[in-house]
Amino acid sequence: MVSLFNCFEVPAGLDDEFLRLWTEVNAYMVTKRGYVSHELHRSLQPDAHFRFLNHAMWESPEDLSAAHDVGFRELVSRTEWSAFRSTPALYEVVHSGTAAPVTAQAAHA
Amino acid sequence: MVSLFNCFEVPAGLDDEFLRLWTEVNAYMVTKRGYVSHELHRSLQPDAHFRFLNHAMWESPEDLSAAHDVGFRELVSRTEWSAFRSTPALYEVVHSGTAAPVTAQAAHA
Repeated sequence: MVSLFNCFEVPAGLDDEFLRLWTEVNAYMVTKRGYVSHELHRSLQPDAHFRFLNHAMWESPEDLSAAHDVGFRELVSRTEWSAFRSTPALYEVVHSGTAAPVTAQAAHA
Repeated sequence: MVSLFNCFEVPAGLDDEFLRLWTEVNAYMVTKRGYVSHELHRSLQPDAHFRFLNHAMWESPEDLSAAHDVGFRELVSRTEWSAFRSTPALYEVVHSGTAAPVTAQAAHA
């Protein structure tokens, strides 16, 4: 399992246009072999450098590579995409943690 | 619940130095009220623009803001940190999905 993170720069006022294009590409990618899940995040601050950030999980780098096929390239080569710069890369988790569970006693202390 | 994404630029050969510093800051932050979880990702390609990407979840923006206290600022103001540029921002999920479960019949077809 690998993670694709894609960080998107979206000029002010173009959220809806970005979402329209991104949703179209996403609908295509989720049909591909090896797609596991995705979460598209939008920044809470409008002036964040990356307005949107997509975290997609795939079974393998090979599956993701194969999904970048002719159909995918047709979708992302549309001129409307030129307004949005993206920085994608593949990642693996190297450190993780979660908060210790709050015990009933501590929660009511 | 909010997500903090922090994208790190790490010069080649400095992974260990980055991890040493980041682990120190992380160990401090996980003790703070409102910390939920974190996943630090490292790129599979050594030349990715962002070598590391941290996804931390917090109960609220206010908790995260309060955690950026004197102790935190002391840790991140060390001169060693100047080698590493970071791009942090807060996010919320606006679109998500998972692959349809494979049925037993389909799996063996």
